[in-house]
Amino acid sequence: MQKFGFIGLGIMGSAMAKNLARAGFDVTVWNRTPEKCAELAALGAKIAKAPRDVVQGCPITFAMLADPAAAEAVCFGPDGALTGIGEGRGYVDMSTVDAGISRRIAEAVTAKGGRFLEAPVSGSRKPAEDGTLIILAAGDRSLYEEATPALEKMGKKVLYLGEVGNGANMKLVVNMVMGGMMSIFCEGLALGEKAGLDRSDILEVIDAGAMANPMFRLKGGLIDKGDYTVAFPLKHMQKDLRLAVNLGDNMKQPLYSAAIANEVFKKAKELGFGEEDFSALFKAVQG
Amino acid sequence: MQKFGFIGLGIMGSAMAKNLARAGFDVTVWNRTPEKCAELAALGAKIAKAPRDVVQGCPITFAMLADPAAAEAVCFGPDGALTGIGEGRGYVDMSTVDAGISRRIAEAVTAKGGRFLEAPVSGSRKPAEDGTLIILAAGDRSLYEEATPALEKMGKKVLYLGEVGNGANMKLVVNMVMGGMMSIFCEGLALGEKAGLDRSDILEVIDAGAMANPMFRLKGGLIDKGDYTVAFPLKHMQKDLRLAVNLGDNMKQPLYSAAIANEVFKKAKELGFGEEDFSALFKAVQG
Amino acid sequence: MQKFGFIGLGIMGSAMAKNLARAGFDVTVWNRTPEKCAELAALGAKIAKAPRDVVQGCPITFAMLADPAAAEAVCFGPDGALTGIGEGRGYVDMSTVDAGISRRIAEAVTAKGGRFLEAPVSGSRKPAEDGTLIILAAGDRSLYEEATPALEKMGKKVLYLGEVGNGANMKLVVNMVMGGMMSIFCEGLALGEKAGLDRSDILEVIDAGAMANPMFRLKGGLIDKGDYTVAFPLKHMQKDLRLAVNLGDNMKQPLYSAAIANEVFKKAKELGFGEEDFSALFKAVQG
Amino acid sequence: MQKFGFIGLGIMGSAMAKNLARAGFDVTVWNRTPEKCAELAALGAKIAKAPRDVVQGCPITFAMLADPAAAEAVCFGPDGALTGIGEGRGYVDMSTVDAGISRRIAEAVTAKGGRFLEAPVSGSRKPAEDGTLIILAAGDRSLYEEATPALEKMGKKVLYLGEVGNGANMKLVVNMVMGGMMSIFCEGLALGEKAGLDRSDILEVIDAGAMANPMFRLKGGLIDKGDYTVAFPLKHMQKDLRLAVNLGDNMKQPLYSAAIANEVFKKAKELGFGEEDFSALFKAVQG
Repeated sequence: MQKFGFIGLGIMGSAMAKNLARAGFDVTVWNRTPEKCAELAALGAKIAKAPRDVVQGCPITFAMLADPAAAEAVCFGPDGALTGIGEGRGYVDMSTVDAGISRRIAEAVTAKGGRFLEAPVSGSRKPAEDGTLIILAAGDRSLYEEATPALEKMGKKVLYLGEVGNGANMKLVVNMVMGGMMSIFCEGLALGEKAGLDRSDILEVIDAGAMANPMFRLKGGLIDKGDYTVAFPLKHMQKDLRLAVNLGDNMKQPLYSAAIANEVFKKAKELGFGEEDFSALFKAVQG
Repeated sequence: MQKFGFIGLGIMGSAMAKNLARAGFDVTVWNRTPEKCAELAALGAKIAKAPRDVVQGCPITFAMLADPAAAEAVCFGPDGALTGIGEGRGYVDMSTVDAGISRRIAEAVTAKGGRFLEAPVSGSRKPAEDGTLIILAAGDRSLYEEATPALEKMGKKVLYLGEVGNGANMKLVVNMVMGGMMSIFCEGLALGEKAGLDRSDILEVIDAGAMANPMFRLKGGLIDKGDYTVAFPLKHMQKDLRLAVNLGDNMKQPLYSAAIANEVFKKAKELGFGEEDFSALFKAVQG
Repeated sequence: MQKFGFIGLGIMGSAMAKNLARAGFDVTVWNRTPEKCAELAALGAKIAKAPRDVVQGCPITFAMLADPAAAEAVCFGPDGALTGIGEGRGYVDMSTVDAGISRRIAEAVTAKGGRFLEAPVSGSRKPAEDGTLIILAAGDRSLYEEATPALEKMGKKVLYLGEVGNGANMKLVVNMVMGGMMSIFCEGLALGEKAGLDRSDILEVIDAGAMANPMFRLKGGLIDKGDYTVAFPLKHMQKDLRLAVNLGDNMKQPLYSAAIANEVFKKAKELGFGEEDFSALFKAVQG
Repeated sequence: MQKFGFIGLGIMGSAMAKNLARAGFDVTVWNRTPEKCAELAALGAKIAKAPRDVVQGCPITFAMLADPAAAEAVCFGPDGALTGIGEGRGYVDMSTVDAGISRRIAEAVTAKGGRFLEAPVSGSRKPAEDGTLIILAAGDRSLYEEATPALEKMGKKVLYLGEVGNGANMKLVVNMVMGGMMSIFCEGLALGEKAGLDRSDILEVIDAGAMANPMFRLKGGLIDKGDYTVAFPLKHMQKDLRLAVNLGDNMKQPLYSAAIANEVFKKAKELGFGEEDFSALFKAVQG
């Protein structure tokens, strides 16, 4: 029975760690607010006192923090993960951070003899609970292989993408495409309605053709109901578009459609929809 | 056994008329170059000498012409369909024309006591052969109902969209969304590659998530092989984007993403890719 | 003393015809509502009963109508200018029409043995009164030369641009640049203010540098006062941007900045600013 | 006779310091490569051994460094300006740095009891030599007033813009407008030519109207000759557009035109024109 550490038990991390515990792995967890550990303990997980203890007690530790600042604090802070890293230890950061931070953590871990894998995920609460995330792993290949039995309990699709930074960049690319699709989708809905078409007809036609996809189906239905309950916040989508456009700057890749989608999302943010679901873009497009 | 006329036996029309004949309907056909009628005759169809004869001999006649000019010629020309229209006759134009031409034909047909339905289709050769087109019908409701048994042999999805013009506008909206999706998809692929990601990895990740759709799967694979054999010509996509943006002008609906996608396709046309498949946009985006 | 006809005495035409009369030319005028002729008569002009009579009585006739429909009516209508055209007669249309209409009038005039010049102007009421318009002439060269003494009384700058259509297209190009400049100017003002800068400081800095131009100076001051009294209506600017983008479609010239400026103006129109001055774009940009 | 320090004798700084020396001020200079000091010494300037010595010897010191890294090094480095700052000393940084760096230097200087002014300039070599720069000052008001006699020898226009950061942001705004103007200008030239107009006619018409400005006149003439000798490098313009768009992100100000201009410049950079003048954008737009 493989032994794994898991740091960070927020909405995502908690669901993911449970999937490891339920799969029968020997799991040790840590969370900043210890209350969140109870559910895991009920499933047989051990509770550690600090990130350092998790890392010292397990050959491979996963981390899933809410944002880049938390990911850095858990790694570099007092009693942080880094202080527990030793020869051959594996540290798998599944938080969403940019390529720069990821490389910084990778350097620190390998400088202490450890092995590092970044493994951001695509998918939110539901896929985390169902173990159907898409996992974008990049970094140490041997660690990737040893971690695979656990990763496969958390995701339905696990890809190894090469060097550290590729996971973060892949996530940007994917989210950029998602943002651009949402922008043209909302424009299509708004245009069709102004031209006298029924919204439900437009949704039905799109869903019957080669463009049919789960996102249009789900978000189209919610837009139709005016339900913008947040699944992926609009402001985060805008931030990802901005980062993608800036990545394009660095790579000398013009991104006309992405740059404009970024401005359209910015307009929606200016109108006060930043905390709603990213499909609230429709309200800004419709005017 | 219902009796139907069918005018226009090009790639699309021929496949559609065959589906009617095979379904056991009593079909009368006409085509400008009569050789194309042989295959239909072999399936039991009658051959008429002019559009007028088709319309006079059948309660409901379908027309599927290559372009707006042909659609107008068949309707308004000498011995044209209009000359055969009488009280209650049904004329269903399935050609892709803009809302203006469609309304003009509708007026002429109804002025002579006939009934008119526009019914442009979404889908190309393969769905036409398989009877799996999406049919966007609009106009006379009673005619729509009477034509439904035939429409259902040609399409997997048949929608009634209200007044004449709505079918044409729906097609514009759908193609606009398709063009915008292709633009952001190509930008994602180009950005990812410049950032060091494998193209096949990007395609796999997108295809595993909520954005997965048949178009990205099919076109992504072909882009990966550099195969831009035409299915839907790039110049036609650009024309549809232009028309959609102009429709937005008329409707006072700003369309930032569509307007930019139009320019990106225009660039591809300028570079000489107009006759290739619309996925050849990738070559222009990649630079 | 040269003899000239002048058709159309609206705000622009009236001012232009007066400049001809004051310069001592023998002027014959016509206007749809005859009351407008009184001022010209007071300056010694003769009044004709129909466009035909103007053209028959003068070797060269200028026309300055409010819109393309009026320009066509005056030329092709009953007792219209065309009915008076004979061998060698000169017809100079200074109205703003698109290249297509201009070519149509040119063909009709030359078919009757006449000579045609299009000569749209850049500039509005004040330059018309001051005789400081910019005149964009294109068409018959000999007519251009004979008309020059009159054109020079109406404009400070008279250019001969070659074949018919070039005048109309030049006006589109110029207005497109103007629209794009207004868009980026408004974005600069809006960004600066949100970043804490004084609007008057921004205007002063721009006006001190290499970008300083009369339009920014004039419109910047009015924007600062919230004065959007119409000089050039926003909806006309949007229409010109649309026509320019469509001209780009025909010429296979991608126009990213113009296409986006068109959408930004469209947004302003959607917000209800279409009848105000085109500088009212600022209100839409500021949000 | 007021006493001023001047740090940084590159193309810009050298010209500016000379104007101070020629105006009769008591000037002390320092440059990383001491050879550059000779010309100043010939005009009576004293030469210091380190930035620290300049600051210690003069109540007010100006700094004009090539880039943000140099500006930071001169301030924070060993024997740097900061080590010489004491109660009431004035430090005026005229280098082009972003608002963040400017605020960092300001904090360090004021923490040591000094006074800080940022004063980036608009204009390049020629205006520096002629003393006709536009100076965008922001920060300590009393320092601004004491420095004014010197600033007025360097610039024809000196503005005080309020708190530190406003100078940097003003420069971004101004350059953003410049970039957007260049983009629409190039599109107008390219469209006009494809439509059959002479480039020189277009330039003449634009220069005769309300949009006439020194930049279009100068750059238009050079574009016409295909002369893209660098005055302001294209890659720097693209960088400023990028920074302006990102500032818009922070301020929630959508910037459609600026975002697209950024992509158009990015395309030009991708095509290899980054080191040429920013008017080389025309080559990318023309295609």
